[in-house]
Amino acid sequence: MPKFNPAVETLAAPPIPTVFAWGRSYDGRSGPLIDLSQAVPGYPAHPQMLRLLGEYAGSASWTGYGPIEGEDRLRRAYGAHVAAVYGAPLAAENIHVTSGCNQAFVCAAMAVAGAGDTVLMTDPYYFNQETTLAMLGVKVRLAPCDRANGFLPDLAELRAAITPDVRALALVSPNNPTGAVYPPELLSSVFELCRSQGIWLILDETYRDFLPEAGMRPHALFQKPGWEATLIGLYSFSKSFCIPGHRLGAITAGPAVVEQVAKIMDNIQICPPRSAQIAVADALPLLGDWREENRQEIARRAQALRETMDGLNGWTLGALGAYFAFIRHPFAERSSAEVAERLAKESGVLCLPGSYFGPGQERYLRFAFANADATTIRLLRARLQGFSGAA
Amino acid sequence: MPKFNPAVETLAAPPIPTVFAWGRSYDGRSGPLIDLSQAVPGYPAHPQMLRLLGEYAGSASWTGYGPIEGEDRLRRAYGAHVAAVYGAPLAAENIHVTSGCNQAFVCAAMAVAGAGDTVLMTDPYYFNQETTLAMLGVKVRLAPCDRANGFLPDLAELRAAITPDVRALALVSPNNPTGAVYPPELLSSVFELCRSQGIWLILDETYRDFLPEAGMRPHALFQKPGWEATLIGLYSFSKSFCIPGHRLGAITAGPAVVEQVAKIMDNIQICPPRSAQIAVADALPLLGDWREENRQEIARRAQALRETMDGLNGWTLGALGAYFAFIRHPFAERSSAEVAERLAKESGVLCLPGSYFGPGQERYLRFAFANADATTIRLLRARLQGFSGAA
Ligand SMILES: Cc1ncc(COP(=O)(O)O)c(C=O)c1O
Ligand SMILES: Cc1ncc(COP(=O)(O)O)c(C=O)c1O
Repeated sequence: MPKFNPAVETLAAPPIPTVFAWGRSYDGRSGPLIDLSQAVPGYPAHPQMLRLLGEYAGSASWTGYGPIEGEDRLRRAYGAHVAAVYGAPLAAENIHVTSGCNQAFVCAAMAVAGAGDTVLMTDPYYFNQETTLAMLGVKVRLAPCDRANGFLPDLAELRAAITPDVRALALVSPNNPTGAVYPPELLSSVFELCRSQGIWLILDETYRDFLPEAGMRPHALFQKPGWEATLIGLYSFSKSFCIPGHRLGAITAGPAVVEQVAKIMDNIQICPPRSAQIAVADALPLLGDWREENRQEIARRAQALRETMDGLNGWTLGALGAYFAFIRHPFAERSSAEVAERLAKESGVLCLPGSYFGPGQERYLRFAFANADATTIRLLRARLQGFSGAA
Repeated sequence: MPKFNPAVETLAAPPIPTVFAWGRSYDGRSGPLIDLSQAVPGYPAHPQMLRLLGEYAGSASWTGYGPIEGEDRLRRAYGAHVAAVYGAPLAAENIHVTSGCNQAFVCAAMAVAGAGDTVLMTDPYYFNQETTLAMLGVKVRLAPCDRANGFLPDLAELRAAITPDVRALALVSPNNPTGAVYPPELLSSVFELCRSQGIWLILDETYRDFLPEAGMRPHALFQKPGWEATLIGLYSFSKSFCIPGHRLGAITAGPAVVEQVAKIMDNIQICPPRSAQIAVADALPLLGDWREENRQEIARRAQALRETMDGLNGWTLGALGAYFAFIRHPFAERSSAEVAERLAKESGVLCLPGSYFGPGQERYLRFAFANADATTIRLLRARLQGFSGAA
């Protein structure tokens, strides 16, 4: 057999299917499986969203090829939306629609870094960002985010890590896996650091709609004059609209970045799926209240998890924020993968091992608590207490 | 501004939007615009296809994340389909669904070649394959396909071009841009060459359903024992089902290739759009007769073009086959881009310059004749005759 590309061949198998397999081999002994593995909204899409998706998908108007950058209707609607969210002069020309936020990251990464360049990330990181860079032959340098610092990166450590081969810093806020919400002031300092060092800041805000307070402004970076020369913002329609299966995300950036991304996207898929774009363009202004209700519901779930974990012998809440909790397990002598696998098979709790998110995370598990309602979350207490961890 | 990735920055702008802009500036002086530019079916999707697309898109069953490799239903249905088309033991495990055939090529290319490796292509080539390799930092070597040889590659030249840095040979049959249908015997020899040289053969068969004869077997490569260690087949649902806007394609390969591609696809987009996959799985067995009618209709269009071009002063039919014709224009002193632009703006005929498809193609224009019905195609005679080409 001829060779495979070593940058791809050496990648680990995708993590989610492995974890699902653990769940399938759970025999139900501790009660129904509690799935806190993949970050998927635990409630269905709005009926109006489904109606729009069905209507446009069934129409001959959206069967042809569309604009590479995305449908004008969605670029305009989403441009106006982010202008309001960030209080910044953003518009259609700043938007490139993608097939989900993973693809947005692939495009952003390729636009700024090639094989042999370096991109700076955090430890822990969102695993698909790490594997994307690895498969592109881009080197990854990790800046540690300690629990003592709320899993936030340290500015001095970031500065020290920016050597001349670094092309970009990739951050995720609200964070996956920890849930940590990066404070606007920190983001502002990080932005100025990137600007002064002449590197790009790629900021993934997939969980932006799940901030702890209503109408909170995530940061003021898009208000800064000349932000286009430093910032590339990423977003996903998967979580907020409960439609990951329809694959839609977006890049918010300066027109010069949009132009580079369009060249990449023309190769990767010509245009994003069209009918779903039109449906989301319509739904965006319609479903504001519904999305706010979901934000509140997820905040209640966070509260339920906080109470559930309180004083739970040996288990501690490393971090808890929008969508995710990063839980410290009590088994110092075991790998996080072993703990997660046995937790799935013996206690019916499906979550991701910390090690999937970086070399420094063996003591942690990621709970995507937003997937489960508060009643289900409360079941975790007995499950975790009953889990001996003994071989 | 920090740097962009030079492999992306140096790419030319996507060709299709440039050509569309020529069309928009046509003032109608010679009659309605005849659009033979992008390869898009000139007839609508089947009503049944639209009904299925609408039904599944409107259902909550397909809103979540799906399997990376594609929906089981589509992998099984398409696996059975290709088993019949090629008379070979193919099944679901051989199929990886993608968001269109461009993405299938990106995945196949990344699976086998990294930055610095070389992939062998033909001149002329399908432009997105060339730009994909360029943006990945993969070197491209071109094997000429001369008109004298029916725009087919020459086996001896291919053999000479396979140096140790070559990882794969990429071919397209039926060909884009020439329309040439590669004879099964040639494909067999090329396959054996690739096998003996230990390189992959990536074969894009986007236009497979438009072969000149009903039920023709495109080639016997999938029947060869051990084909999995050499061949990676690519396909698009865009053209045959008239649904490019829904973005679906597929890779047919051995399970080892599917496994590598899944790692890439997990990064690039987690899973292909789901509801359209289910719709196509249902439509595949239902729409066989309709697709055969379309094949016949396109064959009639080919015949209309052949008659239209016959004895047309200075213009000659370089090649004519499934979907495309490669037309030699009479203006030896002009670039193909200049001829195409003026043909659009003065005569209202939109087509692609030969130079988009390779350095040796300045004398050619690509007509995607399948886009237009026979009556429209016959209008070309007067348009081309009336086009002076004088500055
Ligand atoms: C931080 C982050 N970015 C991107 C994605 C991918 O989202 P999408 O479904 O839009 O590709 C996810 C999904 O879990 C995520 O957690
Ligand atoms: C040879 C070839 N491959 C791939 C594609 C891309 O097709 P899809 O729409 O499936 O991405 C095209 C489209 O024109 C093509 O001509």
